[in-house]
Amino acid sequence: MADKLNWPVFTLTSGPVDAYPAVLRGLGRTVSYDFDPAFQLFYENVAKKAKKAMGLKNAPVILHGEPVLGLEAAAASLIAEDDVVLNLASGVYGKGFGYWAKRYCADLHEVEVPYNEAIDPADVAKALKKRPETRIVSLCHHDTPSGTINPAEEIGAIVAKHGAYLITDAVSSFGGMKIDALSSHSDIFVTGPNKCLGGVPGLTLLGVSERAWKKMKKNPKAPRASMLSILDWQDAHRHDRPFPFTPSVSEINGLDAALDVYLEEGPEAVWQRHALTAKACRAGVKAMGLELWAAREEIASPTTTAVKTPKGVDEEKLRAAARSLYGVTFSSGRGETLGKLTRIGHMGPTAHPIYSTIAISALGGALNALGRKTNTGAGVEAVLATIGKKI
Amino acid sequence: MADKLNWPVFTLTSGPVDAYPAVLRGLGRTVSYDFDPAFQLFYENVAKKAKKAMGLKNAPVILHGEPVLGLEAAAASLIAEDDVVLNLASGVYGKGFGYWAKRYCADLHEVEVPYNEAIDPADVAKALKKRPETRIVSLCHHDTPSGTINPAEEIGAIVAKHGAYLITDAVSSFGGMKIDALSSHSDIFVTGPNKCLGGVPGLTLLGVSERAWKKMKKNPKAPRASMLSILDWQDAHRHDRPFPFTPSVSEINGLDAALDVYLEEGPEAVWQRHALTAKACRAGVKAMGLELWAAREEIASPTTTAVKTPKGVDEEKLRAAARSLYGVTFSSGRGETLGKLTRIGHMGPTAHPIYSTIAISALGGALNALGRKTNTGAGVEAVLATIGKKI
Amino acid sequence: MADKLNWPVFTLTSGPVDAYPAVLRGLGRTVSYDFDPAFQLFYENVAKKAKKAMGLKNAPVILHGEPVLGLEAAAASLIAEDDVVLNLASGVYGKGFGYWAKRYCADLHEVEVPYNEAIDPADVAKALKKRPETRIVSLCHHDTPSGTINPAEEIGAIVAKHGAYLITDAVSSFGGMKIDALSSHSDIFVTGPNKCLGGVPGLTLLGVSERAWKKMKKNPKAPRASMLSILDWQDAHRHDRPFPFTPSVSEINGLDAALDVYLEEGPEAVWQRHALTAKACRAGVKAMGLELWAAREEIASPTTTAVKTPKGVDEEKLRAAARSLYGVTFSSGRGETLGKLTRIGHMGPTAHPIYSTIAISALGGALNALGRKTNTGAGVEAVLATIGKKI
Amino acid sequence: MADKLNWPVFTLTSGPVDAYPAVLRGLGRTVSYDFDPAFQLFYENVAKKAKKAMGLKNAPVILHGEPVLGLEAAAASLIAEDDVVLNLASGVYGKGFGYWAKRYCADLHEVEVPYNEAIDPADVAKALKKRPETRIVSLCHHDTPSGTINPAEEIGAIVAKHGAYLITDAVSSFGGMKIDALSSHSDIFVTGPNKCLGGVPGLTLLGVSERAWKKMKKNPKAPRASMLSILDWQDAHRHDRPFPFTPSVSEINGLDAALDVYLEEGPEAVWQRHALTAKACRAGVKAMGLELWAAREEIASPTTTAVKTPKGVDEEKLRAAARSLYGVTFSSGRGETLGKLTRIGHMGPTAHPIYSTIAISALGGALNALGRKTNTGAGVEAVLATIGKKI
Repeated sequence: MADKLNWPVFTLTSGPVDAYPAVLRGLGRTVSYDFDPAFQLFYENVAKKAKKAMGLKNAPVILHGEPVLGLEAAAASLIAEDDVVLNLASGVYGKGFGYWAKRYCADLHEVEVPYNEAIDPADVAKALKKRPETRIVSLCHHDTPSGTINPAEEIGAIVAKHGAYLITDAVSSFGGMKIDALSSHSDIFVTGPNKCLGGVPGLTLLGVSERAWKKMKKNPKAPRASMLSILDWQDAHRHDRPFPFTPSVSEINGLDAALDVYLEEGPEAVWQRHALTAKACRAGVKAMGLELWAAREEIASPTTTAVKTPKGVDEEKLRAAARSLYGVTFSSGRGETLGKLTRIGHMGPTAHPIYSTIAISALGGALNALGRKTNTGAGVEAVLATIGKKI
Repeated sequence: MADKLNWPVFTLTSGPVDAYPAVLRGLGRTVSYDFDPAFQLFYENVAKKAKKAMGLKNAPVILHGEPVLGLEAAAASLIAEDDVVLNLASGVYGKGFGYWAKRYCADLHEVEVPYNEAIDPADVAKALKKRPETRIVSLCHHDTPSGTINPAEEIGAIVAKHGAYLITDAVSSFGGMKIDALSSHSDIFVTGPNKCLGGVPGLTLLGVSERAWKKMKKNPKAPRASMLSILDWQDAHRHDRPFPFTPSVSEINGLDAALDVYLEEGPEAVWQRHALTAKACRAGVKAMGLELWAAREEIASPTTTAVKTPKGVDEEKLRAAARSLYGVTFSSGRGETLGKLTRIGHMGPTAHPIYSTIAISALGGALNALGRKTNTGAGVEAVLATIGKKI
Repeated sequence: MADKLNWPVFTLTSGPVDAYPAVLRGLGRTVSYDFDPAFQLFYENVAKKAKKAMGLKNAPVILHGEPVLGLEAAAASLIAEDDVVLNLASGVYGKGFGYWAKRYCADLHEVEVPYNEAIDPADVAKALKKRPETRIVSLCHHDTPSGTINPAEEIGAIVAKHGAYLITDAVSSFGGMKIDALSSHSDIFVTGPNKCLGGVPGLTLLGVSERAWKKMKKNPKAPRASMLSILDWQDAHRHDRPFPFTPSVSEINGLDAALDVYLEEGPEAVWQRHALTAKACRAGVKAMGLELWAAREEIASPTTTAVKTPKGVDEEKLRAAARSLYGVTFSSGRGETLGKLTRIGHMGPTAHPIYSTIAISALGGALNALGRKTNTGAGVEAVLATIGKKI
Repeated sequence: MADKLNWPVFTLTSGPVDAYPAVLRGLGRTVSYDFDPAFQLFYENVAKKAKKAMGLKNAPVILHGEPVLGLEAAAASLIAEDDVVLNLASGVYGKGFGYWAKRYCADLHEVEVPYNEAIDPADVAKALKKRPETRIVSLCHHDTPSGTINPAEEIGAIVAKHGAYLITDAVSSFGGMKIDALSSHSDIFVTGPNKCLGGVPGLTLLGVSERAWKKMKKNPKAPRASMLSILDWQDAHRHDRPFPFTPSVSEINGLDAALDVYLEEGPEAVWQRHALTAKACRAGVKAMGLELWAAREEIASPTTTAVKTPKGVDEEKLRAAARSLYGVTFSSGRGETLGKLTRIGHMGPTAHPIYSTIAISALGGALNALGRKTNTGAGVEAVLATIGKKI
């Protein structure tokens, strides 16, 4: 059936990405009863591994749905009706969080920059100065539809100094570069297993600060006895506490395997191969005469390379050509960036530098097939030269 | 690690239950990009298989969280603020749905029976006659914590005649016996892959009637752009429509495999082995001198056998003994039934009659170990005699 | 298809037996090029684990075919044309080895006992005294078609004292009880992953003494550049040496997982659950009024329980009834024991005591179905009583 | 551990090659007792699929070891002591078969050509004319260490006309191009699952003509009751016949999956992607300024591209550089071709044209890293141009 369905040969997207083989095998472990003592200990163990991987001081929360659940739940739980919220938008995802935030608060203000740019920490400081009553700030660290990174640690320091709470969406950056809840002063730090951890979609991981727990508990509208609840799960990682509802057992099995891969290889080694793959890819893009979407290379993500669609090229046809000629799937833009860029993901198992030669080859070949002459050979040479030097 | 964690040898619970080996292997398929054309066709195909398995006229909705998501979403989406809701409670789960329903409507009335009994359709008719303005009725078909089955088809006919909408929770009965959305006149029919289909927890399957779609669309408070939304997913099964957010790709892979197992074996054959396993198990329970929890054997579930805890026996210790002596995990009761009964699940891969000999052996042996003399041999003999005769 | 093919529910045989789930997942690891440096290190590592599990002083040989390859290769390699060989036969497999031995030597003598008996070490001493020129002795430790164990350590001591070489077939006992090459003074100790290690069939593991290596090297007829060669593989476990031909990569992946399971649980713990399962099973057999095949319970194998077929019962029909009524597959006898006994295997994943209740239930139920009244209840009670007491 | 072992990112070898994911999952199916009726039917079914895939008129033989077993067994079984054998050698493997043949016959003559050349059918005719008593001819269709193809069908026609028996080694060509037992007039046609079928190593598939069966049966020295026997397995594919010894159950599970992949995609489609991948790869090799090993491109294999090692380059260092810089594993030469060529495999899952960009990139990059300037960009451009045009 695979062939009748004409599955891709390579999935070089910014998520869902293919999982590590060890994760795919991990998913196949026996499904246990959630109240079985061995499963409860196993779950606690997985939570401990996640805590270690995330560099947390307290246990993370695992919610049983993909990261939009974590983001929606964070908004619903942390934001109280009378909170003033500052949303930082440098892309479609950052902007989108504002709509959720708006549902739960009366007063939302924003700092917004063009979607190929990054938030300037100085602008955050200014906005907070202008609206000192701001109680919550929300930031998308890696705005995936733009492939750009915001300076989370600097922004976090400003927010912390102000005394506001920070919600950080690090879904598609965590695990692929140095970023964590503590260094970014995040009160709710949202990520998931299906980006740079090379796991599968279906869970959210949340780092929640002690003061965020307190604020949520005081929030009468924070979801309880609900799929959207964070509070329900506060103690669920403990082997002697019940789960509020059935956890996604197989997803937990897969997460366990993904965390093992990450911790055994070592976070720094993982980050380094993400960085090198992206660097090689950007070198290739430029050498073949294309432009990066990011206004400046410093803000280009190490986990996704967004390539500006050349004038006169139909971006949908470009991806279709790469797919049909070479079996390579790229990500499109989303919303405002749709049609303006093509995204090459290098996350988890595809974050090996050699993958950049596939990406550049398929991208260049597809452009040529559409009649837009591109120097693919120069692109591949640049990729190889970059790898050769290591980072 | 498995052994250090002392995993059980047999999981004879009422969920999570172990999955079919074919499902565990299915989970290990490659993770695809959700916008890849092959994945979109594949997803549409899975939805078609689910439609066939569920006996629906229109496409089912697959929500990406375990069935509590489906139930909460059904309440949040179908019940409008001014609806009068009749909740039918014959157990902990049926009663529990009332709390969700109450969140969304101003006026809830209930028919409640003892938790070892089933709802009498005549009582439903009476309640509707008394409160003719009732717009929505909610029913738990198999109240799992009691192991009892309600007469969904008869109740559904009464509700349909009255013109009210019916929400049916068939999570732990669908796939293990004859029950479906159409025959039960359900407007929202909720089930999931991890009970009798032998899949894994992490998805909900919803059968939604055309008039339910209309009602939800008119409901301004029905969740939209939310994890709790049903509306967002109405067209998501179509290969030419986007997903509202990332689907749980691996869970879909597993569901595909579970549906293949179900459809290839044939629903009637699957139901028959569930029925025979349960019948053999009940025969064993009675022969060993124990009592069924169900007030009458006719209402005992073919997918779970609830055994009344003998006087003087500590139910928690009973399960712990079965677990430590034999590696057999049973389900406890929940809420009101906790401590009063032990549940033997026979769902999916454990719904083979021979499993009843394991259940009876472990139950009897554990009781004896606790000093409560039980005729386990007679129980096993009764199991075998029942299997021998087939059903 | 599984269902159309009507696969069994439980495989309680003496091999092939079902593998541990961790082994089945291990088989699914990526297939590597045999000359890749990582694979060569991995292979060396697997050999080290096997050495540890087998209690060897030097590296074991892994041959890439099921254990009959190891046995045939041992005969072909160690036995020189002018050797006098003493073959010890207490069953079909022991007897069978004599035919192979005969191919390679001019002079074979035997000690043979009835196939429900064990070799008496005193008889070995006598035979060696009578034929002091005997250079090689061959012994089947667990003659699987009889489910009986020979006193390998005592026999080995006698052979060692005599100065002869000992070939031991421990295929179906190693890993399920205390037995190894050193304690049995074996020069070639043959076993495999698909019995008590819960691996899959397709490899042989050989423990080869230093003097056996020397003898084989001197034997001009010992196979070289052949599938039957042991010599070809002497250094193949070293990461810096080539393989004589392509190793069965996936089988090695599976073996690695099986060895992990064995070493992590701990050999003594594994042996204990084999012993207890067998003890419980024998108690059940006797309590239900049947007889063990073994002449004395002391020589009954902890990994297989052979049950004498009651008079008037057609053994083939007995197994067919257990299979069709309960989905339980037992092993038949082989050759001389065919039709005279039924074998219940308890090896690897089925060596958990609770499995004995399944075996006794299915055996008793099948006998009853054939009209041979059997007290199955008493059998199960005896099983449970034995487990309860632990061993 | 994978990472500590530094596994390759891509295995672009000529075997063992990585298996299709569906095969890796197939390996994880439950291990059945070989005498279980369901397994016996399943095995018969697998044999039927293999028969279909191999285009045979009778059932194939499956031997339970990698293809060297099939080749050695063919020599041992078909060649009688008084047979005159003509061995055709165009490479290391063809030459090597002669040594096996020599073991079993008194009189062997050969046609040998340089190892970058193919056998000329006219030379075969001449040799047969010169030695008309020649009874058996042996041919290696794809001499893998050279990556060259012999004209098996033309040679087969000449051998058939002469009346001699033909043994064909099609291990690394079958399934990747049009070649089968009937069209090549082979009496024993040897192949295996781990090359172009994308299965795993551990089995051999043999097509045996009726007259070959007769000849083997008449040969008193043909192995019987041996791992090397073909005769033992003649009826083993029948569900009502016993296996001579335990089949490698998991390998059969994997083979079943590999045959499904092959038959579902369709042999011609599979051959076409092998051909296009190889064509693109050769175009790349030439465009980057390197030479093919094959004397003429017409005899270059569609399943392996052998690249002549440029003067002054250390071939071992070349492969080591590709492995360490890019994680790409290539095959070396063997024996006489070792150090003179590097082999890029495109078999099974790696026989997708886009893989040629990886191969060319890694090969060119590695050469550059060793100081041998190579136009990798031009190579990749040529690959893409070739793919673009399709074949």
